Amino acid sequence: MKFATLKSDRPDGRLVVVSRDLSRAVDAGHLAATLLDAVERWDDVQAGLLALYDGLNAGAAENSFAFDPAACAAPLPRTWQWADASAFLNHGRLMERAFNTEPIPDFETIPVMYQGASDDFLGPRDDVPLPDESLGIDFEGEFGVITGTVPMGATAAAAQERVRLLVQVNDWSLRKLGPREMKTGFGFFQCKPSTSFAPVTITPDELGEAWHDGRVKLDLHVQWNGAWFGNPNGGEMNYSFGQLIAHAARTRRLSAGTVIGSGTVSNENRAAGSACIAERRVIEIIDHGEPRTEFMRFGDRVSMTARDAHGDAPFGTIDQQVVRAPAPD
Amino acid sequence: MKFATLKSDRPDGRLVVVSRDLSRAVDAGHLAATLLDAVERWDDVQAGLLALYDGLNAGAAENSFAFDPAACAAPLPRTWQWADASAFLNHGRLMERAFNTEPIPDFETIPVMYQGASDDFLGPRDDVPLPDESLGIDFEGEFGVITGTVPMGATAAAAQERVRLLVQVNDWSLRKLGPREMKTGFGFFQCKPSTSFAPVTITPDELGEAWHDGRVKLDLHVQWNGAWFGNPNGGEMNYSFGQLIAHAARTRRLSAGTVIGSGTVSNENRAAGSACIAERRVIEIIDHGEPRTEFMRFGDRVSMTARDAHGDAPFGTIDQQVVRAPAPD
Repeated sequence: MKFATLKSDRPDGRLVVVSRDLSRAVDAGHLAATLLDAVERWDDVQAGLLALYDGLNAGAAENSFAFDPAACAAPLPRTWQWADASAFLNHGRLMERAFNTEPIPDFETIPVMYQGASDDFLGPRDDVPLPDESLGIDFEGEFGVITGTVPMGATAAAAQERVRLLVQVNDWSLRKLGPREMKTGFGFFQCKPSTSFAPVTITPDELGEAWHDGRVKLDLHVQWNGAWFGNPNGGEMNYSFGQLIAHAARTRRLSAGTVIGSGTVSNENRAAGSACIAERRVIEIIDHGEPRTEFMRFGDRVSMTARDAHGDAPFGTIDQQVVRAPAPD
Repeated sequence: MKFATLKSDRPDGRLVVVSRDLSRAVDAGHLAATLLDAVERWDDVQAGLLALYDGLNAGAAENSFAFDPAACAAPLPRTWQWADASAFLNHGRLMERAFNTEPIPDFETIPVMYQGASDDFLGPRDDVPLPDESLGIDFEGEFGVITGTVPMGATAAAAQERVRLLVQVNDWSLRKLGPREMKTGFGFFQCKPSTSFAPVTITPDELGEAWHDGRVKLDLHVQWNGAWFGNPNGGEMNYSFGQLIAHAARTRRLSAGTVIGSGTVSNENRAAGSACIAERRVIEIIDHGEPRTEFMRFGDRVSMTARDAHGDAPFGTIDQQVVRAPAPD
């Protein structure tokens, strides 16, 4: 199944089922008021949503309409929890060199994960308001999962069974604020402004073979101001989503609607490029002794599209512009 | 005004207005379905809630009933955001010695704050399920605020105007997991299980002079298994709540229902004792060369009550037992 949330006069928007080819949509509000409501009552609403989805794909859904990604909020405009890992060790190792930080203890055996803000996610075409161009504005292309409830102490296998939906994420970062926040030990906060999501969230079965071993084996195509920046594949993730969820649930249960991110998608093969600027910069330092790529400026755009072997984009596209935040009242 | 959330068959519980002396309560569901709903529509519901509160205090509210803290969930059983500072520098400096970590950069001029999990808060009498006694189970007595929406870049003064309610918090910690998570730079995660709240949340005016300069100037009385542990005063907070909220909002707007915590209440005067075990342990190391107090065991209880000059407890009491978490299915 594929879902999106259309913006409405309510903060959690309006749930729609989206056709497999992303061309059509149909309101699902009679089955679940919002996507969060659907995830919380998944076992009760799943069959009805599937029937609606099948009807839409067959051209038989009443009152369907053309699907417009520009009308979308994030699939979950807000939720109870967002936790983001750094599960591509290639990225993590490069970032250690970029930030000149101590090696992360047990990096290859224990996932690292930060708790992010889940109160205000951005939609796929929303402007990205930020206060200051000098803060090192960077994108981070990722995959993620939306879970049902997860009991404390769940194994990775049991945790992976709680994956309800997959998402595609741009975890915006302000690189100049990161190193100081890391040194405090309290972790990322100001360096992580609101996170953005691709318009469509999908059940894992939609990916067929490309959902394998708890990983999204799709190329994530990233363009910055229209130019190729990278197309790393999600299959190189060093921890599965089951392992990441289990890590998050080690000392507490997780509520339905929890979103767990992969961290920046990154491949050892340099030809795949990068899914964030900081990674390209550290490669430039390695190759040339200095970074040659600057961070983003107001007015810059970044687009991200995961594509399968046929070139189809199951999550749709994130395409956003960075803008100066308005002065507060 | 004073509010509580009674447990119900809905995850966000049932909003009640509580009398000033905490003896009576009355349902407020006709004005706001939940406390989160009330905070999100504050300007619309405030007058009606105040009329109900005044009537309850005058003994004129219909259908009022005896207020039972044991029937309470956390005032917000879950919300969109929980961020906790370390705003008592006396505590922070002692913890640096306890964990033998590097001094936090700019500790006296920039607040430190971690993003916590807001998906599953515990009520004031709930058991506290944790997986393993050997993880260094500790309590942390704190104060906090619940905000309305806060624009990105708000000044401390403007941010403080967005304080809607005050809360009393026990920010449970697993001390054996903290140092490794601090070293990763990604911050606290597994070392911060679900946070607990006192039964009653209050508007700042309820404290009179004890809400001053963005600080809660009450003694926080902490008892561990019935024995005195400390009674530090919240007035020694080195940053105001306005400053803490502004810190959180520097690079993003905050949604209504955001909870911001003070960090462990701590006073320079040793006679005030401590509001967490880790702090007592480091004082023991300073005085005796070794810690003499162990962390909590399953079956242990901790109670926390903020009291004013008259001995009244405006937030009620947190009184919880630590238990072994059930094995997951």
